[in-house]
Amino acid sequence: MFFKVKTTEEVLEILQQFPPVGEEKVSLPESFGRVLSSDIVSGEDLPGFLRSSMDGYAIRARDSFGATESLPALFEVIGEVKMGEVPGFRVGQSQAVKIPTGAMLPDGADSVVMVEYCHVLDERTLEISRAVFPQENVIQPQDDYRKGQRVLPKGQRLRPQDLGVLASLGILEISAFKKPRVAIISTGDEVITVDKKPQPGQVRDINTYTLSAFCRQLWAEPVVLGLCGDSFEQVRSMLERGLSLADTVWISGGSSVGTRDLTLKVFESIQELEVLVHGISISPGKPTIIARKGSCAVIGLPGHAASAMVVAEVFLRPFMQRLSGELHTAPEAGGEVEARLSRNVESASGRDDFIRVRLEKKDGDWIAVPIFGKSGLISTLVDSDGLIRIDRNSEGLYEGDTVRVFLFGPMKGV
Amino acid sequence: MFFKVKTTEEVLEILQQFPPVGEEKVSLPESFGRVLSSDIVSGEDLPGFLRSSMDGYAIRARDSFGATESLPALFEVIGEVKMGEVPGFRVGQSQAVKIPTGAMLPDGADSVVMVEYCHVLDERTLEISRAVFPQENVIQPQDDYRKGQRVLPKGQRLRPQDLGVLASLGILEISAFKKPRVAIISTGDEVITVDKKPQPGQVRDINTYTLSAFCRQLWAEPVVLGLCGDSFEQVRSMLERGLSLADTVWISGGSSVGTRDLTLKVFESIQELEVLVHGISISPGKPTIIARKGSCAVIGLPGHAASAMVVAEVFLRPFMQRLSGELHTAPEAGGEVEARLSRNVESASGRDDFIRVRLEKKDGDWIAVPIFGKSGLISTLVDSDGLIRIDRNSEGLYEGDTVRVFLFGPMKGV
Repeated sequence: MFFKVKTTEEVLEILQQFPPVGEEKVSLPESFGRVLSSDIVSGEDLPGFLRSSMDGYAIRARDSFGATESLPALFEVIGEVKMGEVPGFRVGQSQAVKIPTGAMLPDGADSVVMVEYCHVLDERTLEISRAVFPQENVIQPQDDYRKGQRVLPKGQRLRPQDLGVLASLGILEISAFKKPRVAIISTGDEVITVDKKPQPGQVRDINTYTLSAFCRQLWAEPVVLGLCGDSFEQVRSMLERGLSLADTVWISGGSSVGTRDLTLKVFESIQELEVLVHGISISPGKPTIIARKGSCAVIGLPGHAASAMVVAEVFLRPFMQRLSGELHTAPEAGGEVEARLSRNVESASGRDDFIRVRLEKKDGDWIAVPIFGKSGLISTLVDSDGLIRIDRNSEGLYEGDTVRVFLFGPMKGV
Repeated sequence: MFFKVKTTEEVLEILQQFPPVGEEKVSLPESFGRVLSSDIVSGEDLPGFLRSSMDGYAIRARDSFGATESLPALFEVIGEVKMGEVPGFRVGQSQAVKIPTGAMLPDGADSVVMVEYCHVLDERTLEISRAVFPQENVIQPQDDYRKGQRVLPKGQRLRPQDLGVLASLGILEISAFKKPRVAIISTGDEVITVDKKPQPGQVRDINTYTLSAFCRQLWAEPVVLGLCGDSFEQVRSMLERGLSLADTVWISGGSSVGTRDLTLKVFESIQELEVLVHGISISPGKPTIIARKGSCAVIGLPGHAASAMVVAEVFLRPFMQRLSGELHTAPEAGGEVEARLSRNVESASGRDDFIRVRLEKKDGDWIAVPIFGKSGLISTLVDSDGLIRIDRNSEGLYEGDTVRVFLFGPMKGV
């Protein structure tokens, strides 16, 4: 088979063809970070009653009209509302009821005068030194949500405040997309498990750990299958195991032509597995392979940890968002920052270069400092905060150019 | 007791006085998102051997000097290096050994010619059409890390790539700060549990859910103590339970003067509990109380969910970072974005106004649209993506002004 190397945009589009994973029921306390698989509609008015938003006195607004500091209005205090209670009063002309923030207004009252504008003359008499408008300092029964109103849309990943509104509406269970399960396989005759001491020529397995953590960061579930050597049979049986266990299989290894060919041969040996992408015009990450078996995407990642992570950040982050059922409604918090480039960076045309950069703050602005180094080095990744993209039609960027830095995953999660 | 209302900066500083929580051992696979409580130092050179970064032929660079397409250099192929093996060859003058990316260089060789510049004439004879420099396409034994070098600093919250470097160095266990435990208490006679149907005057408990999710977002452990009424004895016993269980206690409720006074009275009744802040010059969130008992910070939050979350975002986020032992080394991914204000916003001087805003993209720029509404409404929070701050010395902002939007917690976590 012969494949034309694909562009970044083509690959992103291909990955959007995969459908979101299935749905499940999730209880309210467990729903943080989960993605709604259907709209949430309010089953009731909220707060559902006329509520004071201030400490003060509930009155009929019209009885206060014209009141000023020099000419206060007099009111008769007929009682006090307690929190959480239905008040047993009816407020008539020039009558007032003491009310705390959050309590229910008594019948007859339509507004609350803040305590700051009230002077208690005696137990039954009150002076008000400022007029209020009808509805002033009052929350209407439907002010927060109306019964039947859409409160949260399908595809929303639930934030703390979203749990708040579910709680306030008494929604104890939601329908959510399942967490995508990602089978992770590391291959390579030179790769050993982390507990072993490498002999010259050997390296410890890095990708299992970086890719698992990357999955967890995206609220997905890593299924670690472990390590296998560069043999057709081993890789094939690992891959079949992954296909049976997970929603997507990520197999890293093979930055050499020989192992890449092996991975491809294994892909081609599996029935109904269709190779969609063989090579992307990017650097690093060119030897990436993408295949599909049914709705399961199989991703062949480069073996070098730094290359694999660049491919993950650029392609697998939006892919996982798609698989998770997440729809882009909110801005991608932490997706990117603007920065000035600290030095010239050359770039070969015909491919998108993803340059690792460290961010430094200078006079309040971000400076992007390119981290160069072979992609075989993990240190280039550890030293950097994100990536900049140099388009395939550009021959490079100049010092001082404004660049958008695509940040590595935000630090704050569950 | 009489307290002067404190400024945002004063309160942030007071909260930085609390020490980080204790340490514990954490295994490598569990270490994602944990904060290092001591530096990580490399115990070995990495990769530890001379490694090829390209598919090609390992040679002595000087034998290629002068080679061009029109005048290629001839080499004798004496064998092939396999991945993960110590090669059994010695490369002499004008000799070459086939080598894949990632394999160990044989003795004598100091560089690798990329396969693109090699023409195999027969099994034993190779033509090279481009000269290489010594060290070209080769990773030195110490290129990634040197033995004894500091690899990751104390206070770093571990990202996927940081797990990668730990794996590559064979570090199976780290010392990490414990996850701070946060006792969460909701108070209020009008507040009922979420499974109940509110009667007029009642509302369901929101803060337990918003604040628990907020904790999880900050990698902390919420300890939900639940709901209690506005009685001195109930609040006091809940608070004492929180003090015995957690590293910090968050008690929300009481936007009315009466309940605020109750919280304060309970605080004052507990031995060795010292009130540090009683009121902050911000809106919303003014009635916030902060106290200390030993190293445990007790935070009295406003009852309204929206006010409580604003206080949490502005004060408790950096406070929890401090408690977690996290040091600001990397830029706060997702902390803020720049946007243009969609309309004029007035502000009372003498206090910092935190305005909830929704972000909209327009011609590639972010527009911040203020969401107004009483802080008793949870919808104002659900509709917004972050906060802008209007300084207490400012009387407001104009439409079109550039503002920094302090984003609500990033969506992507574990």
